[in-house]
Amino acid sequence: MQENAVLKSLLERKSIRRYKPDVPGEDVIETIVRAGRQAPFAAQLGSALLSRERERHPFKAPLLFTMLVDVHRLERVMAARGWARKSCDLATLLFGIQDAAYMAQNMVTAADALGLGSCFLGMPPFRAAEIKKEYALPDRVFPLVQLAMGYPAEDPPPRPRYPLPFTLYEGRYPEDDQASLEAAMAVMDEGYLAQDYYRKAGVMVKLEGKAEETHHFGNYSWTEHMGRKWGQWLTDPQAVLEQLRACGFDLTGGAEQAPEEEQPRS
Amino acid sequence: MQENAVLKSLLERKSIRRYKPDVPGEDVIETIVRAGRQAPFAAQLGSALLSRERERHPFKAPLLFTMLVDVHRLERVMAARGWARKSCDLATLLFGIQDAAYMAQNMVTAADALGLGSCFLGMPPFRAAEIKKEYALPDRVFPLVQLAMGYPAEDPPPRPRYPLPFTLYEGRYPEDDQASLEAAMAVMDEGYLAQDYYRKAGVMVKLEGKAEETHHFGNYSWTEHMGRKWGQWLTDPQAVLEQLRACGFDLTGGAEQAPEEEQPRS
Repeated sequence: MQENAVLKSLLERKSIRRYKPDVPGEDVIETIVRAGRQAPFAAQLGSALLSRERERHPFKAPLLFTMLVDVHRLERVMAARGWARKSCDLATLLFGIQDAAYMAQNMVTAADALGLGSCFLGMPPFRAAEIKKEYALPDRVFPLVQLAMGYPAEDPPPRPRYPLPFTLYEGRYPEDDQASLEAAMAVMDEGYLAQDYYRKAGVMVKLEGKAEETHHFGNYSWTEHMGRKWGQWLTDPQAVLEQLRACGFDLTGGAEQAPEEEQPRS
Repeated sequence: MQENAVLKSLLERKSIRRYKPDVPGEDVIETIVRAGRQAPFAAQLGSALLSRERERHPFKAPLLFTMLVDVHRLERVMAARGWARKSCDLATLLFGIQDAAYMAQNMVTAADALGLGSCFLGMPPFRAAEIKKEYALPDRVFPLVQLAMGYPAEDPPPRPRYPLPFTLYEGRYPEDDQASLEAAMAVMDEGYLAQDYYRKAGVMVKLEGKAEETHHFGNYSWTEHMGRKWGQWLTDPQAVLEQLRACGFDLTGGAEQAPEEEQPRS
């Protein structure tokens, strides 16, 4: 079934971190965003903010899209019909993050179909206040993720993934099972080591505190990398909540605390 | 550029709510999930739980995938390497929701390439405790969204979307501008009315309280629908936080409060 162009594109997708300087044309950019915007859900809470200031982008990618959860736009549409948003910020974000994510994934797939590579950059939520200032985002717009994009100047292999039985369950969540865990870890660790991924990327997450380094690029594997990231980083929820507040979102409060005005119905 | 099979698939995608009873084969199901799992990010926080109990599914779709933010699996992998998760639940979910969403979007695109239609069902986060029980989800697994899937028994048109200038910004977020707002609302409202969408779907969100109905299917439009949903529903963040807590997630607390043990390094 991999002869199918769509499946081939999805199954062989990989992040690109080296780009040619060529700037994609307007028609290419517009087609990518058109494909993105056709994604569900139809609440259309996602929008895309493009920068072409290549020198300022990660990997000097010619294009950088900041994917926004754009509640401000929804509120403008609602206000024009005499409605005020009463859905709480948490529920609105749970939908809006998905809207922006589905749009982003379709943009990446469309880009691939047009010969462009891409790389997802995950840190915007953790420096949202800074991005808000940079791009003059109004309140209630949250930068979810960025997409670096352009014509690829490298051709890495697709990266390993967990075996199917470790990702696809049926009927009920499976009991914890040591054999499938070990098989999945082996696929990931051996796969990344065989591609020499972390050495080529020059990435090894430091052990914090006074712990001595126990690994080198010959044995620093995917599961070790995961352990170090999720075992050491992003520990403080207040730091994330602060970024959300800076963008006008309060996860524990919500529109229910707004004055209960009678809304005109247009 | 629409001759391109990938672009055609993305640009013409629409939700399917009527399905043939035919059950897709194992190879089809596996290809769909393989395409899904190749999506970024590589933290692999998304997994898919399949049900084939057609009679219990929305639209009697032959397949129902529940897309999971599967932090339990990550924790198992980490524990096997001597690590405990310290990243707070909020940050972990911000990444995990994206992992599961990118996977879901790729599954939908792959399904389309194989002749299957699909429909995203957005309510799982708001009845997560019930889904946890139904599928025996362990703690720290969150059901994000469900995908109904199968061979389509209808062929609706793609649905309208905001005009491109209302979705793609460049350099900075645009100033509020009445003309582009009105143009966008007209595209959406006239587009949905021309397709007679809400009458065919039999959907009109009720006005709550004592407000009298002001609309009929002849003028009940997309923006009116949005106003009624986001202006009346999902107002209480505590209800959502409760569902998250039932799944073992605490958005304002986090692993930082766990005892600071020295971790063995494998």
